[in-house]
Amino acid sequence: MTMSRYFLELAYNGSAYRGWQRQPSAPSVQAEVERALRFVLHVPELFVVGCGRTDTGVHATQYFLHFDLPEARDLDERFVHGVNSLLPEDIAVYRVFPVTDDAHARFSATERGYVYLINERKDPFLAGRSYQLQPALDLEAMTAAVPALLGKQDFSSFCLAGSDTKTMLCDVRRAEWERTEAGYRFTIRADRYLRNMVRAIVGTFVRIGKGQHPPTHMADVIAARDRAAAGKSAPARGLYLEHVSYPFLPE
Amino acid sequence: MTMSRYFLELAYNGSAYRGWQRQPSAPSVQAEVERALRFVLHVPELFVVGCGRTDTGVHATQYFLHFDLPEARDLDERFVHGVNSLLPEDIAVYRVFPVTDDAHARFSATERGYVYLINERKDPFLAGRSYQLQPALDLEAMTAAVPALLGKQDFSSFCLAGSDTKTMLCDVRRAEWERTEAGYRFTIRADRYLRNMVRAIVGTFVRIGKGQHPPTHMADVIAARDRAAAGKSAPARGLYLEHVSYPFLPE
Repeated sequence: MTMSRYFLELAYNGSAYRGWQRQPSAPSVQAEVERALRFVLHVPELFVVGCGRTDTGVHATQYFLHFDLPEARDLDERFVHGVNSLLPEDIAVYRVFPVTDDAHARFSATERGYVYLINERKDPFLAGRSYQLQPALDLEAMTAAVPALLGKQDFSSFCLAGSDTKTMLCDVRRAEWERTEAGYRFTIRADRYLRNMVRAIVGTFVRIGKGQHPPTHMADVIAARDRAAAGKSAPARGLYLEHVSYPFLPE
Repeated sequence: MTMSRYFLELAYNGSAYRGWQRQPSAPSVQAEVERALRFVLHVPELFVVGCGRTDTGVHATQYFLHFDLPEARDLDERFVHGVNSLLPEDIAVYRVFPVTDDAHARFSATERGYVYLINERKDPFLAGRSYQLQPALDLEAMTAAVPALLGKQDFSSFCLAGSDTKTMLCDVRRAEWERTEAGYRFTIRADRYLRNMVRAIVGTFVRIGKGQHPPTHMADVIAARDRAAAGKSAPARGLYLEHVSYPFLPE
């Protein structure tokens, strides 16, 4: 039996969800999307495979999933519109496209990018969407700590204890702190991430930004290969999955 | 008895509130602010006077209120911080300052500015905060209709029926449509507004932007002095009070 595989690009505000992953008795983005797809496609049993699991309260401005249909369908703009009209306001679908049946939303991804937002003053329009932190952070010190992250390294120090991972090696290809109107934005791109890695990295940067440790602290933490060496994880609400690369998709 | 009067500058996301105004059994921004102020100031009876009423779901990025205390207090940054920590996430206080006892949050205001946001595609991060509208609007046509709004005129056509207002004259000093990343932004500044005026004006612009009427329609609607001539009110969620001017406050 041949199946027809489709990719779906979406975005979501994760504030109201216990993460991406479907769970027996908690709201999840996956369950909402599956419900909408089943209805629009008139398929009673349909399961989607996401590009990754995001934790409770984490957001995505770009997310991909794949699903299979027993036969090829012409899924167009009207399909996207139909799915959107069934999804809640905090989940949006942007496009759908057919892929070969070896394309996999999770395993075919070659790079993922995350953004972390910090705001300095209370902002009613960033509630649940940014980490409010006072006083001001030392952007220069945080930027000086960035190069220590780059390249293929063992990131055990930023991995949640108890994670079941074959290798702790990740290739961080880009990392950057920027000033924004409301505060600061951290951007990171890597081939893969360990569980809780970005939030633990941001927590370690925050220590440096607060002057509790010098910029060299980042290299020390990485070298320690011990989660206890890193800073407290920054809260989920500031974290966004913002980019996923596939070989078959133009950047 | 002399009272000491204070101005408070705040901002709020109105999505969760039945507007600014305190009501017996509905959540309001005013009730939240009064509750927090009473607690921080240890004053059991305290009522605030806002710069204006905003409808259910309307937001404010700048809002002023005044309140009186029986004696002068030194209200500083710590006071602002304390009030913020008691307020919900969707209401923020920015500053407090003493004013003379004839300064009035509502009656001393000489100009108010509103912004209206329209987004073209579904955006999980603009839910409740912008009016999603497809297809694209004709920005050039809407801009051509702007001059008809400017100056001191009778705006009856944009006033909610049943409003109890002495005069329908408003002096519109600025009006502008701009392209944004997500869609369009309308900005308006006037000395005063009639009930529902900005939303009715935006609704009329939308008719023009959709090509249902030519740009000259705006002048025709104003000349009609009849609410039935204007377009349907645009939804509350796209509307923000964004500026209030007082003679004693620098711009």
